[in-house]
Amino acid sequence: MDRAPFVFSVLALSGSLRQASSNRALLQAATVLAPPQLQIRQYEQWGVLPSFNPDDEGREVASVRHFRAAVKAADAVLIASPEYAHGVPGAFKNALDWLVGSGELINKPVAAINASGRAVHAQTSLLDTLAMMNADVVAAASLTVALPTNQLDTAAMLAHTTVVAGLQQVLAGLHEHLLGVPQGAHS
Amino acid sequence: MDRAPFVFSVLALSGSLRQASSNRALLQAATVLAPPQLQIRQYEQWGVLPSFNPDDEGREVASVRHFRAAVKAADAVLIASPEYAHGVPGAFKNALDWLVGSGELINKPVAAINASGRAVHAQTSLLDTLAMMNADVVAAASLTVALPTNQLDTAAMLAHTTVVAGLQQVLAGLHEHLLGVPQGAHS
Repeated sequence: MDRAPFVFSVLALSGSLRQASSNRALLQAATVLAPPQLQIRQYEQWGVLPSFNPDDEGREVASVRHFRAAVKAADAVLIASPEYAHGVPGAFKNALDWLVGSGELINKPVAAINASGRAVHAQTSLLDTLAMMNADVVAAASLTVALPTNQLDTAAMLAHTTVVAGLQQVLAGLHEHLLGVPQGAHS
Repeated sequence: MDRAPFVFSVLALSGSLRQASSNRALLQAATVLAPPQLQIRQYEQWGVLPSFNPDDEGREVASVRHFRAAVKAADAVLIASPEYAHGVPGAFKNALDWLVGSGELINKPVAAINASGRAVHAQTSLLDTLAMMNADVVAAASLTVALPTNQLDTAAMLAHTTVVAGLQQVLAGLHEHLLGVPQGAHS
């Protein structure tokens, strides 16, 4: 793939499909704050993936193929996920389950932002799953960026000093990590 | 609902959608071994549930309505779920996520069998989620019934003394618990 040197593509995944999701808004804010060397785009279509079934692993399902290709093509993945009933949202974990056998996350730099300082179960569980999948979990970018309320939209987040500082730390951590990954290891 | 006194309906949920799933076979073996007072039936249709989206919480989706009604009508739920990438299978957790807001699992006796003595992450996480959902988790029936291999079908399980003994313990624990739940609290 041709691209300017040292420009990294980052696939952003919000673990919530809710239209007014704080996690989606947070990733949108990250997109605005990102330096030109990090091109972030949100991938929303994972919500239409079917339930993972090992029997369908090799079957040609368009949504699965599209999702796997998007993850594979990205230099890094940036996740922001809520917690549902003390766990990772099932639908989002289901999307990850589709990548276990095909291996798109193996050695892929992945960062996970936790938007709630109180919701620790899902974040711990998510990081454990990513490690189990042999993703290259970027600890320096997998931070809690606690939102003061869950009512903030992207504009309000960008006006909030602590949120902006947290996101900048995430982005800097991810960028620094990507600069350290050997060339050619991204695709 | 009319039914003979002291006959309890148990909805069985295999966390794997795989046709030859050990968890599905294990629940099938439980169905065979169950005393006449426990009528177990497997509910397979949860695999077609859409990704949970809080925006769709109140929307009339046929598969969601059907699943919620099946759980609500049952006196108890019996789960056997595998572990995928250190977590509960996402699609199965997604099915549970659909019950959080509508509350069908609140005070519902639920037991979860772990078919693998090694896969402790998913079982711990599942029981934590069920407790968070205010299900009446039946500890005496939420046991590990370790399978010697994952190649056993239902007939082979029924011929395996340790597996049979484990399942009988699960069924006895669940039955005893149901007998102790006040009448009328089931529906």
